[in-house]
Amino acid sequence: MARFGGAPGDWLDLSTGINPRPYPLPAFQGSDWAALPSAAALDALEETARAAYGCPGAAVALAGAQAAIQLVPWLRPPGRARVLAPTYNEHAAALRAAGWEVSEVSSLSDLAGADLAVVVNPNNPDGRAFAPDDLLALRRAVGLLVVDESFADPTPEISLGRWVDGGTEDLLLLRSFGKFYGLAGLRLGFALCGADMANRLRERAGPWSVNGPALRAGQAALADRAWEAETTARLLRDAGRLDRLAEAAGWRGVGGTALFRTYETGGAQAAQDRLAAAHIWSRIFPYSPSWIRLGLPGDAAGWARLEAALAGR
Amino acid sequence: MARFGGAPGDWLDLSTGINPRPYPLPAFQGSDWAALPSAAALDALEETARAAYGCPGAAVALAGAQAAIQLVPWLRPPGRARVLAPTYNEHAAALRAAGWEVSEVSSLSDLAGADLAVVVNPNNPDGRAFAPDDLLALRRAVGLLVVDESFADPTPEISLGRWVDGGTEDLLLLRSFGKFYGLAGLRLGFALCGADMANRLRERAGPWSVNGPALRAGQAALADRAWEAETTARLLRDAGRLDRLAEAAGWRGVGGTALFRTYETGGAQAAQDRLAAAHIWSRIFPYSPSWIRLGLPGDAAGWARLEAALAGR
Repeated sequence: MARFGGAPGDWLDLSTGINPRPYPLPAFQGSDWAALPSAAALDALEETARAAYGCPGAAVALAGAQAAIQLVPWLRPPGRARVLAPTYNEHAAALRAAGWEVSEVSSLSDLAGADLAVVVNPNNPDGRAFAPDDLLALRRAVGLLVVDESFADPTPEISLGRWVDGGTEDLLLLRSFGKFYGLAGLRLGFALCGADMANRLRERAGPWSVNGPALRAGQAALADRAWEAETTARLLRDAGRLDRLAEAAGWRGVGGTALFRTYETGGAQAAQDRLAAAHIWSRIFPYSPSWIRLGLPGDAAGWARLEAALAGR
Repeated sequence: MARFGGAPGDWLDLSTGINPRPYPLPAFQGSDWAALPSAAALDALEETARAAYGCPGAAVALAGAQAAIQLVPWLRPPGRARVLAPTYNEHAAALRAAGWEVSEVSSLSDLAGADLAVVVNPNNPDGRAFAPDDLLALRRAVGLLVVDESFADPTPEISLGRWVDGGTEDLLLLRSFGKFYGLAGLRLGFALCGADMANRLRERAGPWSVNGPALRAGQAALADRAWEAETTARLLRDAGRLDRLAEAAGWRGVGGTALFRTYETGGAQAAQDRLAAAHIWSRIFPYSPSWIRLGLPGDAAGWARLEAALAGR
């Protein structure tokens, strides 16, 4: 806004991978706001999450996948961590801040031998997706395998959820609620893990770490399989539509998920500036001179603006 | 309910110290739910909190005072902690879980010499309040003084807020938002401290630890000094009314704050059961055979029920 003008309401923010058409908020009760979140509501939400994520192990509700990322470094004594990169930068940052020696590597096989390995699946921003068999093989070659499945809702077939049970000690999955359900402000996410790790995460997070409205909205949304299926179908259609627009503008697809797409442009800064001149915000990356990442517009007006900006109209 | 029957709606919950008449929720915007909480909204809330708490230092917004309690043990290497007891049990629990050696002591002077000392001011459940001068003297005799001011809103004169500035390294104050403003489900609280400690707390908590609705409601509530004054006056009146009812029932006041009152009864379990038979829930304590703590009823019907139950009608 400082460089390109406009008020917040004038901008179309495509810089995130958040579903622009959120799950409809349920009717909240006064007690959701006023009372300490109840253990019964938390238990019910975690049970619903286990079913939604197909996980026989524990689902620990936390204030967003980010809250889980903050706790991961404290599950084991600091050692050598490896992160499959480029990816979401908070994993390496949180591990380093906790005293871990962190290497960023570019292939799954280079993660082998780490005390703690992090894979984002599907990956942000390039959409690389790894099959369960490959991750399960890797699991045997590392101390603790952390798989961040924040963008896996539209592709449940790549989730390791069903391989986590009560006795699991070497595998931890992170799930985001806010991205697929379009409610990032609510702050809700889950750690899927064995019983011992769940106890340690709960002890670290402390009681009442998830707010009352998040408990109610999360419960309704995660139980609504029809909305999940319709939303997956819409996001996949819209991702294809975005690809066609980008390709018509001369960009080449790098990859992505149903929630965001990343493109190779002639120059990332120029591409971002061109969209920003039309008050459309995007994401570019310090490690790439040419990649741009776009989220999905949520309505016809947004699509029209993006199409016009990409066509240079 | 298992023992005394009734559905949740039948019960009057006086087991907490949460204001039963919450701050009116502001009109939320779609982006409060949908978007990641913005840095600008967080900065604005923390600035409002500094003004409300009269603190020249940093105010770090967190997901409740409990979230701050979870982080306190990690601010310094584990050593010898002392907690002024009896008090809220989560302080000692969080410190012990992080490897601190924790002693519970019964007078302020016994805290001297600790690497980390915790005082809840005013204290829960007995309402003991300590004057700033006494705490400032103690501060010189301990490594880090943590003062939990979760119940201090109605008595700002005992807060150490104005003694915390940007350079403060040996004093940390915790503030609860949910208790006085009656919005415990929202999960909001603050750590008041110097700049270095604030940076470490923010790094530990990670980004977006406070939800979007909490940012908006907190901003409105903490800026509303008229509501604060009216609420303080009402709570003080109601606390007096509760004392008169309890004394008429033969209980003797132990102490309390404007948000809860603790009484010496003939026997705590019998007193709790008597109220529970009328579907009124209260708090008793493992360390006292005779204390009962009651929060304030929020409306005329609640007061009438409590009065009838205490009078044995």
